[in-house]
Amino acid sequence: MYQAINFEQKLARFSDHWAPRVVAEMNDYQFKLVKIQGEFIWHDHKETDETFIVIDGEMSIEFRDGAVTLKDGEMFVIPKGVEHKPVAKHECKILLIEPKGTSNTGDEGGEMTAKNDVWI
Amino acid sequence: MYQAINFEQKLARFSDHWAPRVVAEMNDYQFKLVKIQGEFIWHDHKETDETFIVIDGEMSIEFRDGAVTLKDGEMFVIPKGVEHKPVAKHECKILLIEPKGTSNTGDEGGEMTAKNDVWI
Repeated sequence: MYQAINFEQKLARFSDHWAPRVVAEMNDYQFKLVKIQGEFIWHDHKETDETFIVIDGEMSIEFRDGAVTLKDGEMFVIPKGVEHKPVAKHECKILLIEPKGTSNTGDEGGEMTAKNDVWI
Repeated sequence: MYQAINFEQKLARFSDHWAPRVVAEMNDYQFKLVKIQGEFIWHDHKETDETFIVIDGEMSIEFRDGAVTLKDGEMFVIPKGVEHKPVAKHECKILLIEPKGTSNTGDEGGEMTAKNDVWI
């Protein structure tokens, strides 16, 4: 009846990159697992902060004036309106937390825009 | 300038149980690290869901009609208004996510009510 959400088990169920899968909701926020590798596009989220928690691997978030590197067991909150570009040399598995409806590319659009609200 | 939040480093800085420490904010939500051991009290949060992510160890969340066990790499969202009692046989380290201002004991109060908005 009450079932834990296990990140490893959920992550084993997909392999594509930059395509977030929703695993839980808290009020109007969603928890999304995503596998990333390579470079994403520059974008921001005008209306909301966005949280990255690294589950496995290492990634960087580039900003126009700096960068932060995150490894498993680390998190970072990107303030709303701040342009950023996620980058991962090797595959990295992360948990995103952001309001339901937030697009992975913000207002930028383009081919890296993932389908929203895809549950796993 | 941009600094990752490392859970292990933050957890090393306190040792008391049931006393959440805020490590980050996302919009009007807070991320709180907490060490738990033993039994908490029955309570609910009338206005909000509450998220538990286990960082290290194992815990259970008891409900009036069941329970869920969580270990590291697992999460659970407790729906608002649902009575629950967190329990951990051995020390367990968890990340809570909930709106800023949420009390650890809901409206129950009592000696286990922690000071709110304590940052580390």
